[in-house]
Amino acid sequence: MPLGGLGEVGKNMMAVEYGRNILVIDAGLMFPESDMLGIDYIIPDWGYLRAKKDLLRAMIITHGHMDHIGALHHFLAEFKVPVYATRLTRGLIEVQLKQEHMLADVELHTFAPRDVLELGPFTIEPYHVCHSIPDTVGLGITTPAGLIVHSGDYKLDPTPTDGQPTDVDKLLEFRDRGVLVLLSDSTNADQPGVTPSEAVLNGVFQGIMEEASGRVIIATFASLISRIQQVVDAAAQQGRKIAIAGRAMVENARMARELGYLRIPEGMSVNLDEIKHLPPKQLVIMATGSQGEPMGILNRLATGRHPALEIRKGDTVVLSSHTIPGNEEVIHGVINRLFQRGAYVHYDPLAQVHVSGHASQEEQKLLLDMVRPRYFVPIHGELRHLTQHGRLARDAGMAEEAIAVVENGYELFFDQEGMQIGERIPGRYIFVEGALVGETGPAVLQERDALAQNGVVLVVVRYHRRTGDLIGAPRIISRGLALNAGDWMSNAERVVCRAATVEPGTAPEVVERRVEQAVSDHIYELTRSTSVVVSMVVE
Amino acid sequence: MPLGGLGEVGKNMMAVEYGRNILVIDAGLMFPESDMLGIDYIIPDWGYLRAKKDLLRAMIITHGHMDHIGALHHFLAEFKVPVYATRLTRGLIEVQLKQEHMLADVELHTFAPRDVLELGPFTIEPYHVCHSIPDTVGLGITTPAGLIVHSGDYKLDPTPTDGQPTDVDKLLEFRDRGVLVLLSDSTNADQPGVTPSEAVLNGVFQGIMEEASGRVIIATFASLISRIQQVVDAAAQQGRKIAIAGRAMVENARMARELGYLRIPEGMSVNLDEIKHLPPKQLVIMATGSQGEPMGILNRLATGRHPALEIRKGDTVVLSSHTIPGNEEVIHGVINRLFQRGAYVHYDPLAQVHVSGHASQEEQKLLLDMVRPRYFVPIHGELRHLTQHGRLARDAGMAEEAIAVVENGYELFFDQEGMQIGERIPGRYIFVEGALVGETGPAVLQERDALAQNGVVLVVVRYHRRTGDLIGAPRIISRGLALNAGDWMSNAERVVCRAATVEPGTAPEVVERRVEQAVSDHIYELTRSTSVVVSMVVE
Repeated sequence: MPLGGLGEVGKNMMAVEYGRNILVIDAGLMFPESDMLGIDYIIPDWGYLRAKKDLLRAMIITHGHMDHIGALHHFLAEFKVPVYATRLTRGLIEVQLKQEHMLADVELHTFAPRDVLELGPFTIEPYHVCHSIPDTVGLGITTPAGLIVHSGDYKLDPTPTDGQPTDVDKLLEFRDRGVLVLLSDSTNADQPGVTPSEAVLNGVFQGIMEEASGRVIIATFASLISRIQQVVDAAAQQGRKIAIAGRAMVENARMARELGYLRIPEGMSVNLDEIKHLPPKQLVIMATGSQGEPMGILNRLATGRHPALEIRKGDTVVLSSHTIPGNEEVIHGVINRLFQRGAYVHYDPLAQVHVSGHASQEEQKLLLDMVRPRYFVPIHGELRHLTQHGRLARDAGMAEEAIAVVENGYELFFDQEGMQIGERIPGRYIFVEGALVGETGPAVLQERDALAQNGVVLVVVRYHRRTGDLIGAPRIISRGLALNAGDWMSNAERVVCRAATVEPGTAPEVVERRVEQAVSDHIYELTRSTSVVVSMVVE
Repeated sequence: MPLGGLGEVGKNMMAVEYGRNILVIDAGLMFPESDMLGIDYIIPDWGYLRAKKDLLRAMIITHGHMDHIGALHHFLAEFKVPVYATRLTRGLIEVQLKQEHMLADVELHTFAPRDVLELGPFTIEPYHVCHSIPDTVGLGITTPAGLIVHSGDYKLDPTPTDGQPTDVDKLLEFRDRGVLVLLSDSTNADQPGVTPSEAVLNGVFQGIMEEASGRVIIATFASLISRIQQVVDAAAQQGRKIAIAGRAMVENARMARELGYLRIPEGMSVNLDEIKHLPPKQLVIMATGSQGEPMGILNRLATGRHPALEIRKGDTVVLSSHTIPGNEEVIHGVINRLFQRGAYVHYDPLAQVHVSGHASQEEQKLLLDMVRPRYFVPIHGELRHLTQHGRLARDAGMAEEAIAVVENGYELFFDQEGMQIGERIPGRYIFVEGALVGETGPAVLQERDALAQNGVVLVVVRYHRRTGDLIGAPRIISRGLALNAGDWMSNAERVVCRAATVEPGTAPEVVERRVEQAVSDHIYELTRSTSVVVSMVVE
């Protein structure tokens, strides 16, 4: 019988299980790929936990980014379980739960790095790590089977914005105690070298602000609190005031400021209504929408759709965020339009205006050496990243059998014998779309894809079963069809009439299939492309 | 009156006009963005030339990549104009025209670099440039208004695969004669430094082949003839035979080999049927599909859908091509699946397995200095690249007025007074979709986008106008709707019946709009997402 088990449930959600006790770590959301038409975001499939509701002891959150807390309100709607987080992370969770009107129903606990939490058979020791948001932690989890170290999202930045490097002492202490397994962030496992320090941006931002003769608009993720701090610091040096555009960033900044994680000098903060009274050279605007989201600030500025702000000649725009794969085209389009409106745009690779919050290969090797675990499990990343991270560990001297490169959903068991990789627990993407959670399945996405290719044609005919005759002309409506309706319609009517001319007594369903086939063939012949055709025969 | 005019018509197509003479340079295609649902590719809008058909003297092609020749058969179907190209480029054009059954109808001429072509008032001096395909040229075009230098797609690679560096002597000769305007490739204008030489890949490929214990599969664009040569050379060194998978690459390679631009030693080339008899360590396979195209070889290998080839443990796959923006997600998915099947995958940034064929900033500055034109026009690239390239020229000392950063469609005029930027000639994307060219417009794409969001619902009711009553139950069909049909349908029926209960004598169109609105509202209420609803009322 295994002493302990763990597994990554889905995008940044993990369960640690011992006896009748389960600890859950993080509840992140994932952005849909561009072929997942109509989907807003994706949350983990926690079906496995549903049957074990009574065993859940706690949800531990490592930090306040959306890919770690974005699914939390969905999770808490189903599981009544206390949530543990650091102060800032808790603040950001509160913002989310308030929006969902759930704040009163959730039991929230605050911990600090170096605290010790005793939860059932687990002793949890959070420790500080550097990341692009303050108050991020990794976790030491002592279980009866041994000590698990969970890296969190980390980098080994000796000069972070908040002056607090990753807690190496704690990692070395774990090593001295003996680490059963290290679970480590693989996001940048295909990036050679060391991730540049946050500090490199200080000079860059100051240089840009100094050079710019007008306003400077800096776009980043709403939750990159550290980046906001860096911009504030540079703006203070350059005698510029700062405004924030974008609801989510305004709220995150307010919360971070209240809790002391964002320091904006008195009188430096202005709101969007005040900026028109300021000389452009005295202004920095932080904005959301760095992924080119249609309703984000940056896209609205690029297309002239913001009520209070517009791009003018002389503005300087900085895209200080990495591009989530799939968003490249949209972001390039936004950059082009900003140039078109007369702004100058700084973006990667033109200038180093963003640094990653995740460790690169050399740091990942350092962490392995600092912790020297018996087993190694790469987490957080696509299979290519996990594979690469596993290879790094092998190159660093670990045995193949001590490394588990597994995709989400696999169970890992640890006992006196060692580590065993279990079966993959069946799971799927849970799509969130508007108010619907998990309703949209692959069949619906396939139908949407078909509709998107060459539209849909609807044909209604009235039919007299006894004689097999049509009554009146067919009605044909199309949406998204490339063929010009005017030219095409009369031909299509003839095709429908021919297909609907049948033996007396033919069932209407048969006529419908005949019409659909005939119209479909006709469109293919004209376009070499397939449309969805739906026919209804009214008797 | 202007002495001469020129303008970029669309993606890599340009017209040079003097008096009653027009020269057209290149006819490229563009890949659709991911929100252009159903579109296969995009060609330039040459409406401007339509009214001036008689003035066209020649089409000059700079090289054989699809973004320079891909629209040629569409163009030649409309304009009977002789085509001039180097030998290899001509060979690749012939492959394309043969496929379209147009080869016999087109007048093709071959030129070599350093030839001089006299075409009406134009004297054309093609000169060799380095690019990722052999036989690429830039153009010197002497007109009565002055000398135009068109850079072609170029880099300044001192150690190219074919041993032929860019013809700097010719560029210096142009400078000595005095250059009116330089039109220069801006593709990499946001890349600092110098583009690495093709030569850096030789060692990389050899290293990968030496290290790999099994087969090596290298994917790239079908037209990257230079890359194929490099792989052949490395394979020869490593005692591996070479097979090519993918129709387009097979045909391009055959043509390049026939013409002497691709050298494969006797007995080294094998076909896909023979490879199973060879030890894996003695084999390299070149494959298409490096952009993750669903029907490309690489995607079919990743998903196990190739009839003759399958990925096995021990295979090494190399993605030797840049990622066209918008394809990142798909390519990442392919890489993950290749890992899943047991291959090891080399890809950027993990290893330098691709170098660009375009000049970076330092080379662009060198070219400017080599040519020292009176005017400078950045071409080939999005507005962000053109802007950047213009800025480089300014930083290099050119006056703002001597630089024309203009998007496609603008006319430029040159006379004794200097350069004037004209109006933008109205133009649009010409979408190619199956057999349809230019039929699909923005309205159709918007309809497809709406369909893709939450599907379509079709409602048919029979209605008695005189009484205002429905006859029988409404029929409701949906496609791509997230709501589960079973649960939802009976509710929807009630909504339809209520909306269709009207005053006697109400027109059916009014009933249709009422039903559509009611169903649409009902769906929004349930899903917070909008579907396309079409209703037909049959009297």
